[in-house]
Amino acid sequence: MTAPLRIALAGLGTVGAGVIRLLEANGDLIAARAGRPIQVVAVCARDRGKDRGIDLAPYAWEDDMTALAARGDVDAVVELVGGSDGPALALARNALAGGKQFVTANKAMIAHHGMELATLAEEKGVALKYEAAVAGGIPVIKGLAEGAAANRIERVYGILNGTCNYILSQMESTGADFGDVLKDAQELGYAEADPTFDIEGVDAAHKLAILSAIAFGTAVDFAGVDTSGITRISAADIAQADALGHVIRLVGIADVQEEGGEPRLFQRVQPVLVDKEHPLAAVDGPTNAVVAEGNFVGRLLFEGAGAGDGPTASAVVADLVDIARGNVTPPFSLPVSALAATAPADPGQRVNRAYIRFSVADRPGVLAEITAAMRDAGVSIESIIQHGHPADNGDEPVLVVMVTHDGPESAIASALAMLEGSPALTEAPLVMRLIG
Amino acid sequence: MTAPLRIALAGLGTVGAGVIRLLEANGDLIAARAGRPIQVVAVCARDRGKDRGIDLAPYAWEDDMTALAARGDVDAVVELVGGSDGPALALARNALAGGKQFVTANKAMIAHHGMELATLAEEKGVALKYEAAVAGGIPVIKGLAEGAAANRIERVYGILNGTCNYILSQMESTGADFGDVLKDAQELGYAEADPTFDIEGVDAAHKLAILSAIAFGTAVDFAGVDTSGITRISAADIAQADALGHVIRLVGIADVQEEGGEPRLFQRVQPVLVDKEHPLAAVDGPTNAVVAEGNFVGRLLFEGAGAGDGPTASAVVADLVDIARGNVTPPFSLPVSALAATAPADPGQRVNRAYIRFSVADRPGVLAEITAAMRDAGVSIESIIQHGHPADNGDEPVLVVMVTHDGPESAIASALAMLEGSPALTEAPLVMRLIG
Repeated sequence: MTAPLRIALAGLGTVGAGVIRLLEANGDLIAARAGRPIQVVAVCARDRGKDRGIDLAPYAWEDDMTALAARGDVDAVVELVGGSDGPALALARNALAGGKQFVTANKAMIAHHGMELATLAEEKGVALKYEAAVAGGIPVIKGLAEGAAANRIERVYGILNGTCNYILSQMESTGADFGDVLKDAQELGYAEADPTFDIEGVDAAHKLAILSAIAFGTAVDFAGVDTSGITRISAADIAQADALGHVIRLVGIADVQEEGGEPRLFQRVQPVLVDKEHPLAAVDGPTNAVVAEGNFVGRLLFEGAGAGDGPTASAVVADLVDIARGNVTPPFSLPVSALAATAPADPGQRVNRAYIRFSVADRPGVLAEITAAMRDAGVSIESIIQHGHPADNGDEPVLVVMVTHDGPESAIASALAMLEGSPALTEAPLVMRLIG
Repeated sequence: MTAPLRIALAGLGTVGAGVIRLLEANGDLIAARAGRPIQVVAVCARDRGKDRGIDLAPYAWEDDMTALAARGDVDAVVELVGGSDGPALALARNALAGGKQFVTANKAMIAHHGMELATLAEEKGVALKYEAAVAGGIPVIKGLAEGAAANRIERVYGILNGTCNYILSQMESTGADFGDVLKDAQELGYAEADPTFDIEGVDAAHKLAILSAIAFGTAVDFAGVDTSGITRISAADIAQADALGHVIRLVGIADVQEEGGEPRLFQRVQPVLVDKEHPLAAVDGPTNAVVAEGNFVGRLLFEGAGAGDGPTASAVVADLVDIARGNVTPPFSLPVSALAATAPADPGQRVNRAYIRFSVADRPGVLAEITAAMRDAGVSIESIIQHGHPADNGDEPVLVVMVTHDGPESAIASALAMLEGSPALTEAPLVMRLIG
């Protein structure tokens, strides 16, 4: 057994405490696998006195997080503080600049500053690893960057946010509306007090931007992710999707397509209708799943717990085992200089089947107005459903749900532009694509 | 770009030719990811003149396979010949003893001789890699040995043979019997002319023995796998399983349990009834899927193509990329000296729900005889179904299908021992466990 890998841990929330618990529970096994022990040397968190159910006495305490990066007795710094900027970013910069190996679960920071940090890591010849940042405990970064390394990846997509998936599958099984399920999810700990980043799709977009870079060898481009969340999904949408043989899932999807002879990076996070026969349809609750399609391997699927202290700690420590073993690859699989700055694709050219839900005033001529706009924009309608409502509710808006044939998204956008401002519509239409 | 990784390729069947095609198609990308090109230097196969759709002119040809291992211009030898012994094993021994890196897709050889070869690889400080040997293109060896490295693995199980899974899912969707579906599968190339190793579960047992070693840190023990195949599954079993909310899959399953204070390795390949709600139930056709349950990560699932030239070549080249990058771990995750020789578990102590199908003579008293044996052996029956048959078939045997409550397998074995030789039974009962 050679010298231990000595680590400093910033952040002792559920994940940080989970890492310490994991190293205590499985330390011997991990040392045998890694060929050397992984030893926590120093820790830092906001509140030293807080009871975390773990004994911090064996570890040096630093009040100042950046001091962790300066310690001479530390080989690797683990950042579990969160936030795209601020102290986490300062620590990352300090640690890497100081030649420390660096491990993080911070998707926001990698999505925003991954290129800068990877450059720094390369210059210093140290690791920048973030398996826990995408899909929790699932080794999908490794699966893509190493397991599928022989392939040109043609598409990557998946369920990247456990909170949204929990909410959507609860809506499915209970028939309840979004707001009620969100409240329950918050009480059960599946959603945070401020759930914005989750339910608006931002968290999934962070993860998708990271996956894209690894899959396609493109520069990380979080700003290029076309993102929408699940807040507008209603119980009626779930029921309609069900009647159409689909479930609704928040899916991140990315590929590279040529437009006018140039490669363009398409990245989108959006609720979609997933055919019940598709493997993603069976992914329920807070589970995550990522599909990668390679030109030789075909379709690979990785599934597991997308969050939680145990799974996230598992991914963090897997990175540390790699470092202890000396298995270190470029942070985004290719050297930073080889990552191509690829302009975002024009979503209007995407060809899809779409689900469009209109909320309309219940008066004559509304259907004619909508279908005329579709005709004029060249949208081909596969099916249309209008449900009436009880007679005593005559002033309430009614839903019209349409499924289109395969067609360019620009055509639907044109049709909806024609209908914009129409008094027939009581709210903006909701468009979701179908995959299957 | 540094010096190329120079490889010699033994075997130019579909997989060998696939590796060459893959390196031609994706070579530039792979060189960028690996930091150096992967270059085929020499090849060897039985028939030099055969048209494989690839140009062999750039590569040196060796008539004698072992000569590949002796070449001074080769860094890594790739064995795609197959067979647990014979030329493949000779090549492996020669290559490793000569200090060459070694990559193989040969599950039989690793299951039988993996310990010897790993010892040799360790002594010489070279890699022995075999990602393609288990579950085709799915990076499950990497997923377990590296992705889940922080975990004590509590159980590993999965669908490890694409031929059996194809046959069972075809029986399911068509209602046809085993023999007819096997014939179709052979014509379509999903089953070999001699399908014995696949349909008798031997191929899956090879893979399970390898997975067990990595998951549990135990010595590879192929002989210890309790193996049965799918040849006795009838259309009636598939229909009964369906009525019970299950599908039938050939599943390999392994864990380590204490017996009398000693760890015991349980390894079994057997057709089982999988609850339709379980992720494995949705795995259709020649797809493979492996589940690993870790004490921190929870349940991980890896799914993809279990065979075929593209997926298998993808896994072979992923191993080569690891070698080119210098990412090499012990062949079974732990050093060979740390792999524990663990005695096989006593299956009689396993507690399961079981499906038991009796084929009986249609005469009075048969049910009483069977149920009395169950009672005397302490087997608790959850449900029992007997279907009659058309009146004009009175001499044909009828099926009695029983599902038991959770109970030890030894109790069922006792009951069946009591019934052995009974004229009431027209053939040996078929027992399958339920998972869900």
